[in-house]
Amino acid sequence: MTSNDSLARLAAVIESRKASNGGSADTSYVARLLERGPDAFLKKIGEEACEVVMAAKDADHGGDPKKIVAEMADLWFHSMIALAHYGLQPGDVIDELERRAGTSGIEEKALRKAQQRDSE
Amino acid sequence: MTSNDSLARLAAVIESRKASNGGSADTSYVARLLERGPDAFLKKIGEEACEVVMAAKDADHGGDPKKIVAEMADLWFHSMIALAHYGLQPGDVIDELERRAGTSGIEEKALRKAQQRDSE
Amino acid sequence: MTSNDSLARLAAVIESRKASNGGSADTSYVARLLERGPDAFLKKIGEEACEVVMAAKDADHGGDPKKIVAEMADLWFHSMIALAHYGLQPGDVIDELERRAGTSGIEEKALRKAQQRDSE
Amino acid sequence: MTSNDSLARLAAVIESRKASNGGSADTSYVARLLERGPDAFLKKIGEEACEVVMAAKDADHGGDPKKIVAEMADLWFHSMIALAHYGLQPGDVIDELERRAGTSGIEEKALRKAQQRDSE
Repeated sequence: MTSNDSLARLAAVIESRKASNGGSADTSYVARLLERGPDAFLKKIGEEACEVVMAAKDADHGGDPKKIVAEMADLWFHSMIALAHYGLQPGDVIDELERRAGTSGIEEKALRKAQQRDSE
Repeated sequence: MTSNDSLARLAAVIESRKASNGGSADTSYVARLLERGPDAFLKKIGEEACEVVMAAKDADHGGDPKKIVAEMADLWFHSMIALAHYGLQPGDVIDELERRAGTSGIEEKALRKAQQRDSE
Repeated sequence: MTSNDSLARLAAVIESRKASNGGSADTSYVARLLERGPDAFLKKIGEEACEVVMAAKDADHGGDPKKIVAEMADLWFHSMIALAHYGLQPGDVIDELERRAGTSGIEEKALRKAQQRDSE
Repeated sequence: MTSNDSLARLAAVIESRKASNGGSADTSYVARLLERGPDAFLKKIGEEACEVVMAAKDADHGGDPKKIVAEMADLWFHSMIALAHYGLQPGDVIDELERRAGTSGIEEKALRKAQQRDSE
């Protein structure tokens, strides 16, 4: 199964947890976060990003890189809950990534900006 | 093109930017971040997570949700640079998400934890 | 010199950098951030918090704790720029900290919540 | 009471919560965080920074700025728990802020860097 199918399928599960689709905060973690509103899941994005960073720093010092995978899954999962709330799809993000990769010069522009910062 | 192909293809591009694969910090933003080491791209993960949150808050107040897509693409992109550095693949994260979605009881466990926090 | 004087004095310097007080983005970093508006300095708060975390993780693995001081100074400094923008003072934050410390039961409440999370 | 006294006093309370000073995780939230170790309170720094940003964005859109004070107090409070763990004092951070404010050219240097980024 491709990851597109995976992410689209996960997005469909998240979508089904919306109250308007019959999701219940009593039986679903996702439904509960969605019911609580943006601050609840946005805060998780900040928190999980921090946990990714900590797991990575541990890996730099001999820790297990698999911890990074678990924390990144948490980060992407809560990212997808946010996307669902705003009527967006993981495919929208992937399209944007595709678009950038396909647009020659994008990386070069980011590079020039970074080089100028260095030259300071 | 499926997102699996998309993410795997993007991961391959990032991989090709490693100095050991001939990537050059003079011509590639990704090569430059990888050369600078973990703190450079981990910091970007924290920064981009914050930008996702700000774009989402703006959307809550009438802003364009497309801004969220752009910031989320930045977040996922720098996430993938980190994965590459640690020898990991986006597919590892997607497998973990699949595993969780497929393991009955996972969401229920997260829910029970959240409900107990509420009952405090 | 007490830190109240220190923080109040630093807050006064930041206040003087507002355009309405004659500050100029051409000669002052603070004036420049204030002119750019909230997203510019809020993003720095997220970024500097991440850098505090990275410096702390390095210290856990033998790094110099002084790095934490430098990053924390960055975090508090940008915190104070945000406070100034919203018409707030560091003294407001310190009053809030005082109030909590002085209110018996505050820590106990936080503790009970945390213990319940543990018992899950 | 000056904020120096306030922060130093709060730091002393936090110090007294260390297990080596008789603090108990059964009766103190601070003792509990310190006992759990760095990841527990570092994660809170990332989380509270995110909440400061969200409260500020709400204030941008008509929300109550007092919410920012409450979230900033949380951020600084957990910052001080981290400082205590690493044998540091809030006074160390304030000294660093004083040093920078007192060193002419510091702001100018930050400004030049920021201007170069703009000129890209």
